[in-house]
Formats: sequence, C-alpha cells, structure tokens
Amino acid sequence: MAFELHYWPTIQGRGEFVRLALEAAGADYIDIARCDPPRKGVGMPAMMHFLDSPSVKTPPFAPPFLRDGSFIVGQTSAILLYLGPRIGLASTVEHKRIWTHQLQLTVADVVAEAHDTHHPVGTGLYYEDQKKEALRRAAEFRKARIPKFLGWFEQVLDRNPASHRHLVGARLTYADLSLFQLVDGLLYAFPKATARALRKTPHVSRLHEAVAGHRRLAAYLASERRIAFNEEGIFRRYPELDG
Amino acid sequence: MAFELHYWPTIQGRGEFVRLALEAAGADYIDIARCDPPRKGVGMPAMMHFLDSPSVKTPPFAPPFLRDGSFIVGQTSAILLYLGPRIGLASTVEHKRIWTHQLQLTVADVVAEAHDTHHPVGTGLYYEDQKKEALRRAAEFRKARIPKFLGWFEQVLDRNPASHRHLVGARLTYADLSLFQLVDGLLYAFPKATARALRKTPHVSRLHEAVAGHRRLAAYLASERRIAFNEEGIFRRYPELDG
Repeated sequence: MAFELHYWPTIQGRGEFVRLALEAAGADYIDIARCDPPRKGVGMPAMMHFLDSPSVKTPPFAPPFLRDGSFIVGQTSAILLYLGPRIGLASTVEHKRIWTHQLQLTVADVVAEAHDTHHPVGTGLYYEDQKKEALRRAAEFRKARIPKFLGWFEQVLDRNPASHRHLVGARLTYADLSLFQLVDGLLYAFPKATARALRKTPHVSRLHEAVAGHRRLAAYLASERRIAFNEEGIFRRYPELDG
Repeated sequence: MAFELHYWPTIQGRGEFVRLALEAAGADYIDIARCDPPRKGVGMPAMMHFLDSPSVKTPPFAPPFLRDGSFIVGQTSAILLYLGPRIGLASTVEHKRIWTHQLQLTVADVVAEAHDTHHPVGTGLYYEDQKKEALRRAAEFRKARIPKFLGWFEQVLDRNPASHRHLVGARLTYADLSLFQLVDGLLYAFPKATARALRKTPHVSRLHEAVAGHRRLAAYLASERRIAFNEEGIFRRYPELDG
C-alpha cells in the first residue's frame, strides 16, 4: 500500500523533507492534499480529518504527517525516523540510525531559526507587522547562525571516515537529502550570506550539488511535483533580510 | 557501565529532560560537568573535549549529549529516543516508541519557543538588548501558543484509550516526564498565563502533579541534584513577560 503524505499543497515547507526522501527512494506515495480533483480519501478534507477528528487516537499536532496503513506519524523528524530504514535511506543499525536522526534534528533546528527570521514575534502576525524585529533577527542569523550550522555539517562530513560525500557512512541517507534542502532553502532566502558561508564549507557545497544530480532527485526537481520556493513557505526571499 | 550525561552545570536547560529520565528510572549515571572536584574524565574539560576534539567522529552540535561506552548521542530528543527503551521509559514496540518520540519533539518545539520569548532576536545578545521585541513575542506566546500546545497534550491524554494519566499506553514514559518539565518551566516563567491555560487542561494539570509525586522523582526534585530554575536557563521569570 502506498504511503500517504499529508501536507499543505502550495508550499515546500517542512513537508518537502519527506517528499525528498520518498522521491529519492522511488517510494510509492500519494501527496494527499495535492490530489486534484479531491475525491473520497484525498484532498484537503482528507488531511483535515486527521487533524480534527476525535476518532484519531494519535493526532498530529500539525502537518506534515505520514500515514502507513493504520499508523499515523507526525513531526518531520519522526516521519523520517520511521521511513528511513523502510525505504533504504537510513541504516538498520541502531547507532547509525540515531546518528542520522541527530543530524536531522539539527537540520530542523536551523529550519526553525530560518522561519523565525521573518516571524521573530509570532506566526500569528504578518511579516509586515514584525519587519523591524525581522531585520535584527535576520542579521544575527546571517552573521552567526548560518556559518555556525554549516560549519558543523562541514566538520561532520570532514570527519566521516567512510566518505566526505555523505554525512553517515558511504551511502545516501535522508540526512544528506535534508542538508541539501536546507542549503537550497538558504540559497533562496539569503543568497549572498549563504554563498559566503558555502565558500568556507566545500564539503557541504559539494553535497548540495551531488544530491541535486542524483538521478531520481534531479527528475523530481525538474518536475511539477517540486513546488517552487515562495513567500508563504519557510524560506522566503525578502532582499532586505539578506546582505 | 554508568551513562555519562554531559551538560552545562548551572542550569536545568535542555539537559533536565535527560536528567529526569535517568532519575525516574533509577539509572546509573554521572552528570559529568557537575563532578566536583574535576578529575580525569569528568568536569567541564571532559565535556568540552567531545565538543572540540577532531578525534570525535560524531561530534554533538551542543550539550546535552550522552555517552554510553563508545557511543555518543546529542540532541535531547535523540538522547531520549536512545535511552527510552533501555531504561524502561519507552515501549520496545516501534509504533509506540515513535509516537512517544513525536510527543517529545512537540515538547521540544514549545521549549524552543519558550526560549525565544526572552531571546527573540538572537542568542548572541543579552535579554536587555532585545526587551522590546521580547515583550511582543511573549504576548503572542502567552495568548496563542501556550493554550494551543497544552490543549493538544490535553487532547492526547483525553484520547489515550489505555489511560488519561499517561500520554502513551498505561505506563510512565519519558514523554510524561518531559510534559511535567515543560509545565513546571512554564509555571516558573509565566505563572499567570500558565495557570490560566491549565484550568482548561485538567488532564495535563493532573499529570504534572502525579509526576511530581513519583517516588524517585520526588526524591530527586527535593535533592541538591535538582538545580533551581534561574535566569540563565530556558525558562526565565521576567515578570514583564507574563500577564
């Protein structure tokens, strides 16, 4: 049975980390909220059912969530933890699986901080209503956080005894895909600051290029299934926040 | 061999979620950076070694991290994922283990937001230098986020077919301990707003009380091993941010 991915249909957002894993693995999946026309079991109403219905005993806090038969799992990192060994994108050896997960959680930390550059006061307000705060927060993110985080991933790649081309062992894992997506999003939102940071993190830069050239991934990225970055998602291009 | 917990010695911070699990389980562990006097293998230098030394192939991004023999794992949620089944605080059944982890990740999301109420612009600046932004961010956190998050945990407890006293099944898991710690921290930092929210989430309120009364936990909380909340940690009491 196909995996069901439930996520907002018009943004990459956090769902994209799951999409990339499913696509790179060539897994059979349905992007539920993007099914058009909506019919029984698919479309936005199907997604909302799992968020709203009291019959769901393990309700996700928010999209994305994944359904695999009767099992429902939310939280991007938990979804990948579950999917990884099933679709060949994480080791079945516990220590390696948890290290892969630790890398994913650190990607998630950067993603949350990237989001907060345009929403430092709160998700309930428009960007325009927190622009002054956003300018300050983005400056700190550009100058201190992007170099620190990418520097740490560079170190991980550099110290990997099996390969400098992968974060874990010598094979592609979902952590590689997520680092690709992180760099891709940062390049979209903060092109100048990210290009500067990448000049000091050659392994990270090469991983970003290599993942983009992965056969299945390249096909996905060129397809209509890849939603373009836009100013409704996590990574938003507001030129005043870059520099 | 004892587990080694590596974390800053003067705050509860994120390390406290790991401490609570180790204490509740009665696990054999050493709180490395708090060993006094420092001697070979313990104290702050021992912790810094794992952060700084190029010999560490899987470097933690930041404390807390756990060492179990030759295995090192960072990121609070990943540490608990690893520890849980080993110390009897998570099921060994995969679906339940991942659901427990999903709950933990949502606690971690609230913790990050609670931190950002006093550091909305950046961790590199003092609170005093971002107080104006903090006032706005805290208002949104109090009014929208605390009720939303606690409301979701209430729903999870309410829908748990095995017990309304536990988040997962009918036994204590690290998710229960982490929800206790979250509520405890919120009550410290935002006493008025949290008390208001708890009146609408009776299951969460009861869980907080029940965990505080757990035999081993109660002994820990009354001991010197429990560091008091303070204004260096995640949950800080700045009365102007409550209301």
